[in-house]
Amino acid sequence: MKKTVIGVMGPGTRATATDLQNAYQLGYHIANAGWVLLTGGRKTGVMDAASQGAKAAGGLTVGILPNDGIKGISEAVDIAIITDLGNARNNVNVLSADAVIACGMGLGTVSEIALALKNGKSVVLLGQDWHSQQFFRDLAPENVFLADSPQTAITAVQKILSSRPLP
Amino acid sequence: MKKTVIGVMGPGTRATATDLQNAYQLGYHIANAGWVLLTGGRKTGVMDAASQGAKAAGGLTVGILPNDGIKGISEAVDIAIITDLGNARNNVNVLSADAVIACGMGLGTVSEIALALKNGKSVVLLGQDWHSQQFFRDLAPENVFLADSPQTAITAVQKILSSRPLP
Amino acid sequence: MKKTVIGVMGPGTRATATDLQNAYQLGYHIANAGWVLLTGGRKTGVMDAASQGAKAAGGLTVGILPNDGIKGISEAVDIAIITDLGNARNNVNVLSADAVIACGMGLGTVSEIALALKNGKSVVLLGQDWHSQQFFRDLAPENVFLADSPQTAITAVQKILSSRPLP
Amino acid sequence: MKKTVIGVMGPGTRATATDLQNAYQLGYHIANAGWVLLTGGRKTGVMDAASQGAKAAGGLTVGILPNDGIKGISEAVDIAIITDLGNARNNVNVLSADAVIACGMGLGTVSEIALALKNGKSVVLLGQDWHSQQFFRDLAPENVFLADSPQTAITAVQKILSSRPLP
Repeated sequence: MKKTVIGVMGPGTRATATDLQNAYQLGYHIANAGWVLLTGGRKTGVMDAASQGAKAAGGLTVGILPNDGIKGISEAVDIAIITDLGNARNNVNVLSADAVIACGMGLGTVSEIALALKNGKSVVLLGQDWHSQQFFRDLAPENVFLADSPQTAITAVQKILSSRPLP
Repeated sequence: MKKTVIGVMGPGTRATATDLQNAYQLGYHIANAGWVLLTGGRKTGVMDAASQGAKAAGGLTVGILPNDGIKGISEAVDIAIITDLGNARNNVNVLSADAVIACGMGLGTVSEIALALKNGKSVVLLGQDWHSQQFFRDLAPENVFLADSPQTAITAVQKILSSRPLP
Repeated sequence: MKKTVIGVMGPGTRATATDLQNAYQLGYHIANAGWVLLTGGRKTGVMDAASQGAKAAGGLTVGILPNDGIKGISEAVDIAIITDLGNARNNVNVLSADAVIACGMGLGTVSEIALALKNGKSVVLLGQDWHSQQFFRDLAPENVFLADSPQTAITAVQKILSSRPLP
Repeated sequence: MKKTVIGVMGPGTRATATDLQNAYQLGYHIANAGWVLLTGGRKTGVMDAASQGAKAAGGLTVGILPNDGIKGISEAVDIAIITDLGNARNNVNVLSADAVIACGMGLGTVSEIALALKNGKSVVLLGQDWHSQQFFRDLAPENVFLADSPQTAITAVQKILSSRPLP
């Protein structure tokens, strides 16, 4: 039976130290909750830190890679989905997640937040400035949740999962 | 030889009257400049209005459709690219455009602006509020251009095209 | 209003001299019939030859490119669709064509024939050996047409177009 | 660290009783070997049977779904990748597999075999007629392996995996 999958999206090389710490904690808590972690799969930034955190807690990690092979994959990814879709893989990332946490900010992350909301997914925002958070809340008030720590982000995900209609 | 293609992206059913007027003018001027117009191809909102404007000026229009057939296509689309990619087709939209004009605002439009900038494309913003414009300028200061009318948007596109490196 | 688009698919570097002559003739006749030619867009093999033939007859050519830019594009492509989808773009090729002609044989061509038939499209086979033609006829007897020259392939396309249900 | 993923591709509703038995056995042996099973994820034909077999042996199963949600998913899929790519997801299927086993024959399966070989992957053929097997062997002699039972297919996969260059 399908496992619950939580996506953590965020910047690569432009991730801040706080983004990386948050991502690691998110991965750790996601694994502890018994959920599968899904990221963009590369060995950089939020993708890598979240995957490392999930593995530290004994979790299962999925990485949706943009290229046609595993070059540049995070060593903390268990299941590699190799798409050769470039940035179009961002839509696969968010569709495959039962809930999305955006950790930090960058152009790829903005595209993933927007695509998630466009597809009707709920998104938890962590670590963006106030203006960015308002920008997305204005666009999809009912599906955007704000968090100020990895713990509150996880609580928001639990709320999102429990309020979903039964399949 | 490859023709110059200008993408006009914007909301569908949520387009405002101003968005539609702007889109029609953009399409008209793009065709007048001898460029090909590229949109998301559907018979709604900015996509349809821009395509109608381009046809009124005798231009050529391309529509990149999200589904597996032509259902819902704008009657003003000459060349239909049928992708069956859902929202992942937004990445094809922006990659195929030599410059992108975002006319109005919505979740799909946000994803297209972000994907365009992520792919290194220049984007002209027309008809968004000040906060939205600042949001994108902060993310990619060198590739975001602001316009306050269809005419200034076209001027910005001319500037973008003339400053590109020769192929 | 949407123009009629005919796709010509076939091998790149592995195209035979006969494949190239057939492709050029197909492009020429497609343009003469007032149809738009669609190919994989690269400057090699059947894609390039068909596009050259269509331009020689004053036609309009669309190229659906696999990479994230126009590197390697045929000089005879007018409208470049830049997908960054790798071989997944083969599905876009066949969906966007009102009918598909497979000219010659190769792994990409086999995938395009199969994807076209899977999507319910009609395919005209030109220049394959008898076993290959039978292989596809067995899989989709009603949608596979055999041709022994560019002229008979064009006749088969005309028959396919005229037998389609009205939109 | 990335787990080894073996893809089993084959027909859905058109699968024969033998295809289904073979698929179940393949899934069972793949799980027993400690590999992850990857399929197209739907609750039909070879996809479903292989996933059921893998779960019977306590394995982990990944399903790459074509639509924008989990409707129609096999109950034996653990990790659902939701692509909304239609048949373009076939390219993701084969890219994500360290080796591909084609079990039975159909249009989707033909596209997957061709895309796998086009991407340089090795493919084991099980349960096709002699002409179909020859058709693919002629196209890619070095990467096509023939099997006459699930057991010999698994042996072929082991040989493929052991002969790969180290990453």
